[in-house]
Amino acid sequence: MMELLMQLPKGFRFAGVSAGIKSRAGAKDVTLIVSDTPCTAAGVYTTNLIVAAPVVLSRSRTPSANIRGIVVNSGNANACTGQQGDLDAAEMTRLAAANLPQELHAHAEDFLVMSTGIIGRKLPMAKIQSGIEQAAKHLGNTQTHFLDACDGIMTTDAFRKTAHRSIRSSKGSHSIVGMCKGAGMIGPKMATMLAIVVTDAPIDAIVAQRILQAAANRSFNCISVEGHMSTNDSLVLLAQAPSKSVEALSDTELADFEATLTELCIELAKKIPDDGEGATHLIEICVKGANTQADADAIARNIALSNLVKTAITGGDPNWGRIVSAAGYAGVPIQPKRTALKINGLPLFDAGEPLAFDAKQVSESIRASKLTLIELDVGLGPGSATHWTTDLNTEYVRFNSEYTT
Amino acid sequence: MMELLMQLPKGFRFAGVSAGIKSRAGAKDVTLIVSDTPCTAAGVYTTNLIVAAPVVLSRSRTPSANIRGIVVNSGNANACTGQQGDLDAAEMTRLAAANLPQELHAHAEDFLVMSTGIIGRKLPMAKIQSGIEQAAKHLGNTQTHFLDACDGIMTTDAFRKTAHRSIRSSKGSHSIVGMCKGAGMIGPKMATMLAIVVTDAPIDAIVAQRILQAAANRSFNCISVEGHMSTNDSLVLLAQAPSKSVEALSDTELADFEATLTELCIELAKKIPDDGEGATHLIEICVKGANTQADADAIARNIALSNLVKTAITGGDPNWGRIVSAAGYAGVPIQPKRTALKINGLPLFDAGEPLAFDAKQVSESIRASKLTLIELDVGLGPGSATHWTTDLNTEYVRFNSEYTT
Repeated sequence: MMELLMQLPKGFRFAGVSAGIKSRAGAKDVTLIVSDTPCTAAGVYTTNLIVAAPVVLSRSRTPSANIRGIVVNSGNANACTGQQGDLDAAEMTRLAAANLPQELHAHAEDFLVMSTGIIGRKLPMAKIQSGIEQAAKHLGNTQTHFLDACDGIMTTDAFRKTAHRSIRSSKGSHSIVGMCKGAGMIGPKMATMLAIVVTDAPIDAIVAQRILQAAANRSFNCISVEGHMSTNDSLVLLAQAPSKSVEALSDTELADFEATLTELCIELAKKIPDDGEGATHLIEICVKGANTQADADAIARNIALSNLVKTAITGGDPNWGRIVSAAGYAGVPIQPKRTALKINGLPLFDAGEPLAFDAKQVSESIRASKLTLIELDVGLGPGSATHWTTDLNTEYVRFNSEYTT
Repeated sequence: MMELLMQLPKGFRFAGVSAGIKSRAGAKDVTLIVSDTPCTAAGVYTTNLIVAAPVVLSRSRTPSANIRGIVVNSGNANACTGQQGDLDAAEMTRLAAANLPQELHAHAEDFLVMSTGIIGRKLPMAKIQSGIEQAAKHLGNTQTHFLDACDGIMTTDAFRKTAHRSIRSSKGSHSIVGMCKGAGMIGPKMATMLAIVVTDAPIDAIVAQRILQAAANRSFNCISVEGHMSTNDSLVLLAQAPSKSVEALSDTELADFEATLTELCIELAKKIPDDGEGATHLIEICVKGANTQADADAIARNIALSNLVKTAITGGDPNWGRIVSAAGYAGVPIQPKRTALKINGLPLFDAGEPLAFDAKQVSESIRASKLTLIELDVGLGPGSATHWTTDLNTEYVRFNSEYTT
């Protein structure tokens, strides 16, 4: 397994334990990640106005140069839980700080918090407390500790989602490791996306925040399963805090870090729509030639969210009309006469006119591979964007309609 | 049948004939509606930038005080057909004018045109021509003529969609009759919506345009099946043109006309998501308490487009979290603590907290009726909006993925 080769970032400890929040016996549901010294933290959160208590709390604490770690529970989202929810989220961070190994002193406000799972139910705080206590005792920096932490954030995920990279700077080699969770096609709840990236590269908080937002815009903000934004979506970056003895990365090194972080985030993000037994296709939508990146994003997103496009791919149907017309109502400029479309490299539409093409060949190329590539060139400018989504099939509908609150 | 009782507007003639454009033998596919004298016309069209040739042409001719009628074909949308498509749309209006009964002189530019059906294929102009010639010979003003015209605009509709009203003014009694088509749940193509409303109430063109847009904003713009805006969506109003001998409606009468037209358009529009064997539920989403009507519209639309909300209704699941969170990412202000939700009149969420409710009772109320009523009060201001959509079930997916281009 690739993931066994990863180099963990120095100075961080990980744990994932089972506290009985999830109904499945032994399923890990509390994760703790701790920095040996105060670290840099940046965060990108859901923009839903119906927002879970842990998001409100973590958002208020990032960016920061003085974070000690993050505590996460799965099995309960602590969303739509009123004032008690706010108190419980704060209590989770207090418990994380209070239970740290003796040599690591920290306060409640030094911790971030994430929750994912069912919404509208109060957190089972007795279980949460015993889970955090147990996790604090199991902190460590081996591969096993890291993978336990990954397991502790999962909900309906069919597989563990991790990615890792390393970069070199004048200060030596730095590791970047990431984990995420997100129910794909068959996520019956809110398809909450949680992601945590940890690095021992030394970066200032404000810089980390800017870089993380840019990476999110090219990765986690470009994936959709059903386009329903969760109350809990959160992406957090923990990095080494520069200090008198450790200088921050230089501008050139930062550019390298940003490119590498973006790559890692894309690798993680794509695993979300790729997950789920229901998804028969991962659809990659590459839009280029838009006036701006934002325009390209809007077009790619509109195509990704079209049920008619998604069902066409399910059926292996080269229905270019559904794709081109989805681009047409994205609310940004496009001109049919400059627009060209390919599916899996085969040209279907160009300059406002359908091309003669072998429908059977296109169908077979869709059916032969899990990945379907849609390339739309709108021929106006330099803006480009790539989005990923799934097909829409009867399995998705069955799972999401048979799920009961 | 209700529709047999309608009073047709004076001065208009209708026809619907079979020209062999649709594959099903004898299916009507050319409709012609003609005014005995030049009439008022207003139009509201798709805002998709990938727009069919007939929309471009009709849009350029409305509003107008000098229109003679409208010619429609079903079975072929004349969309994405390049320059030939533009020529063909214009030719349809020329043929309509040229084939009118001798006493009705008209020019090509006096006609509007609509098309619906498969996209990306050239119009079969020989069939179109013979259809228009035949329709011109069959024009009449009986109920049967009107219903034939309705049939000529249908595609995958499972039933004919008509509505009628009458109003009184100082000039006497006026009739308003409407027809529309739109594949509902199981529309495999573009779910194009076409609607034509005809009245003998005397109204100026500019006024008619304003009133029609307002009515559309409360009706056809509030329905969705999959949120995929078609290349061909069009709503046209034909009205008597005021003249020296017939004065236009007064302001008070116009207000009455607008309210009645809106009612009629809502009745027609709701029939679209109500159509289709696949749809087990018509979902009515009433949002009130938003800051503005536009805000309420945005919230209602976001709920209507959420696959998670739609599948929850399919399953009879009172999943209030999916509804409230869909409201939260509509991009307009809402505050959880002021928000209240009911399904079928039963309160589920209030003031930021889930209420204790009998889930079985809510489920049974959803399962017992085709109509599901979602009421969301966001408690901020006077803005309200009502939208309609369908559930999302396996039948929809099967139909839309098995359809082949």
